[in-house]
Amino acid sequence: MITPILLCGGSGTRLWPLSRKSYPKQFAPLVGTETLFQASARRVTGEGFAPPRVLTHVDFRFIVTEQLAAIGIAPAAVLLEPEGRNTAPAIAAAALELAESDPDGLMLVTPSDHAIPDQTAFRSAVTAGIEAARDGCLVTFGVRPDRAETGYGYLELSGQPGAIDAPGPQPVAGFVEKPDPTRAADMLRGGTHLWNAGIFLFSVATILAAFERHAPAILDAARSAIAQGRPDLGFFRLDSDAWGAAESISIDYAIMERADAIVAVPFAGAWSDLGSWNAVWRDGAQDTDGVVTSGPATALDCTDTLLRSEEERLELVGIGLKDVVAIAMPDAVLVADAGRTQEVRMALDVLKAKGAPQAETFPKDHRPWGWFETLARGPRFQVKRIVVHPGAALSLQSHHHRSEHWIVVEGTARVTVGDAVKLVSENESIYVPLGAHHRLENPGKLPMVLIEVQTGSYLGEDDIIRYEDVYARG
Amino acid sequence: MITPILLCGGSGTRLWPLSRKSYPKQFAPLVGTETLFQASARRVTGEGFAPPRVLTHVDFRFIVTEQLAAIGIAPAAVLLEPEGRNTAPAIAAAALELAESDPDGLMLVTPSDHAIPDQTAFRSAVTAGIEAARDGCLVTFGVRPDRAETGYGYLELSGQPGAIDAPGPQPVAGFVEKPDPTRAADMLRGGTHLWNAGIFLFSVATILAAFERHAPAILDAARSAIAQGRPDLGFFRLDSDAWGAAESISIDYAIMERADAIVAVPFAGAWSDLGSWNAVWRDGAQDTDGVVTSGPATALDCTDTLLRSEEERLELVGIGLKDVVAIAMPDAVLVADAGRTQEVRMALDVLKAKGAPQAETFPKDHRPWGWFETLARGPRFQVKRIVVHPGAALSLQSHHHRSEHWIVVEGTARVTVGDAVKLVSENESIYVPLGAHHRLENPGKLPMVLIEVQTGSYLGEDDIIRYEDVYARG
Repeated sequence: MITPILLCGGSGTRLWPLSRKSYPKQFAPLVGTETLFQASARRVTGEGFAPPRVLTHVDFRFIVTEQLAAIGIAPAAVLLEPEGRNTAPAIAAAALELAESDPDGLMLVTPSDHAIPDQTAFRSAVTAGIEAARDGCLVTFGVRPDRAETGYGYLELSGQPGAIDAPGPQPVAGFVEKPDPTRAADMLRGGTHLWNAGIFLFSVATILAAFERHAPAILDAARSAIAQGRPDLGFFRLDSDAWGAAESISIDYAIMERADAIVAVPFAGAWSDLGSWNAVWRDGAQDTDGVVTSGPATALDCTDTLLRSEEERLELVGIGLKDVVAIAMPDAVLVADAGRTQEVRMALDVLKAKGAPQAETFPKDHRPWGWFETLARGPRFQVKRIVVHPGAALSLQSHHHRSEHWIVVEGTARVTVGDAVKLVSENESIYVPLGAHHRLENPGKLPMVLIEVQTGSYLGEDDIIRYEDVYARG
Repeated sequence: MITPILLCGGSGTRLWPLSRKSYPKQFAPLVGTETLFQASARRVTGEGFAPPRVLTHVDFRFIVTEQLAAIGIAPAAVLLEPEGRNTAPAIAAAALELAESDPDGLMLVTPSDHAIPDQTAFRSAVTAGIEAARDGCLVTFGVRPDRAETGYGYLELSGQPGAIDAPGPQPVAGFVEKPDPTRAADMLRGGTHLWNAGIFLFSVATILAAFERHAPAILDAARSAIAQGRPDLGFFRLDSDAWGAAESISIDYAIMERADAIVAVPFAGAWSDLGSWNAVWRDGAQDTDGVVTSGPATALDCTDTLLRSEEERLELVGIGLKDVVAIAMPDAVLVADAGRTQEVRMALDVLKAKGAPQAETFPKDHRPWGWFETLARGPRFQVKRIVVHPGAALSLQSHHHRSEHWIVVEGTARVTVGDAVKLVSENESIYVPLGAHHRLENPGKLPMVLIEVQTGSYLGEDDIIRYEDVYARG
């Protein structure tokens, strides 16, 4: 049995506006109907795989459990990073945590924001690496290049030209940083270089030994973060102070470039890191003009262009465009030259500087009990759609500055106002006066949807006093 | 006194998505804070001008009165066209209607969707034409060209080169259709051609005589449309059958190209027909890179690009663009090569064919009593924001398939449900059961805003039975 370790802490800001700090790209259905995280989890589920373990940022914990539950996968553990420290500390923590139950086991470490459409080919590659991993190698997976890509790092195989076509593990001679075009073309011709996909297979013992030798400080920090961490509602919170002391560094730099006995399994299937909108275009389903569309998008006489509308009721039209990417959402639209999509980060700095919430957050706000979004806002009122998962409950709370009208439009709510508890069904309403203690629950088996109309002098999310909260929030 | 005739029936689809058939560009604040129609009305208001008369499509009648009221202008008449028949029938009808009260008066006929920023210069030009108009000339106004524009028609003056710089009326030798680039360059060099701005000054008697001579059938149709038309709530409805019999033709073709005694007053001020997004860009406030932005739009390293966000809470970001126009609205986004903006019409055909409502309508629906917009929609519910003008009332109505919850969030509503009449104030709600007769009124002095939550099996606008309607709708 191989234990999958899903690394799921990235912030994916280069795919703004679809991906934002509060809900990054791995949680979005960027390709197909499942999210990248769901597809990544499914890829490592089934025969030969133990339930996955997930490393994620503390802010994403409920998104992770919700998205896994939606596809019927129960994780064995979800480790919460108080802050992102890159892949080396995350892998060290995962290895230490797994060592407690399976010290001789194999770990398959994968990002959860890449696209690998051919699941069978991927599993064959993993299988091809098992023996080497059992023998104490650090197994990595390299993608056979089909162009002189300058946006990826490379693995150099020590074998003869053609080694990249071998079906099994090949010794790795070294790692190559993102190359310039000339070097990339040389490597493509040479036949001994693979793209570094950031996927690894090794035994718990092997990787822990490698950390002991090459990055003992990171291992110590990870060990402390676990020892001083604490379980919390089924998650495991790594200790903030200890975690913050770990060097923020990738596994490539911390271990792989220093270790011996590294092998790579060549992988000839399709793969994309979806690292920029240009990559999404390049690796998307292009028509004969090189146009990729998604959602209600219409391209008239465009070439080499990506048009994505991320909402059913938002029509995007492109006319006569060449080398353009356009991503439309109801609160934010990006239009960029296809060669300049790396500069999205600069745009985000501008938006942040002017205080635009779109830089980091979505109108839809995910909470452990479900989600809400603001539909309309006025000087003294706000209208929200609130969706509560079956069996979930909001905290018992009150507000100083607003009263709330709730109209249930789907399902049934159990509503507490003061001392009274009442079931409110579709097409029924209830009023929550300013100052009243209240709680909203969904006792049913289907999502409950209600429209909330707030009125008052101050309508900020921080006007909330929580008395009880099943999600242990402050 | 000159009577302004504001032609206001255009559909402006080339400026989609800002301009749509249901609410075309003249009613939008395309330049500055006032709408083009309001700016056009203001331009011909004040000393020397009688109250304006407006020709518009029947569907726009309440928009016309609402927008004029908002800037304190009371029209002398609003003539309603059952369908658009181009400018010749509209001007004939306006002349006949004005002849009843002022048969010797002067009419200044202007489109209401152009930009003429310098009001003083415009009025000077009008003044310069008065004497010729009194003397029986058909006076037109021509814009001094500053480039070899191929998108406009031209007026050819019969004077020497330099005639286009004269301060007063010049005899017109002929009209030139939109030229090819070579001809446009020739005309720019020649100094005897002006852009045809579609603005005219003449006496009622002169234009009626010209119609009698050159287009008597149109005059007959217009006369019948008035004779068989009827006043309606302060509007005048031209008769559909008679109006439909009028040839759909421009005043240029029907009269100007055939008539004698045509003079043109050269106008050297800025002018734009805002006839395409490229024109909006060209005539907009370009920065040193040729970038024009409007609303929350951010341009990073763009050149010769128009970026417009038409909503306060919609961030538009452009990166590395050249010769692109991007117009962002929450329900529709256009991105086009700047040289291809005429093809917006083709895009609309595609949208219409696939049934996208964005092709012709806005989420915000204007009614005589105010407006509403859908905020959210589900299988069995819909949420609307409804804004009712002070003193206005919706019809007494009922619905077969839905019940409605109303929560007042601004102002006070007078609500009739069955036999009961009740005042509902901010932060109060009322329930309208399925089938109940109900009416909503705003008895106050400020707009009243309410949130309506509909639930039911069918939520179309056509599930309405009207019992009484102060706006005489069916």
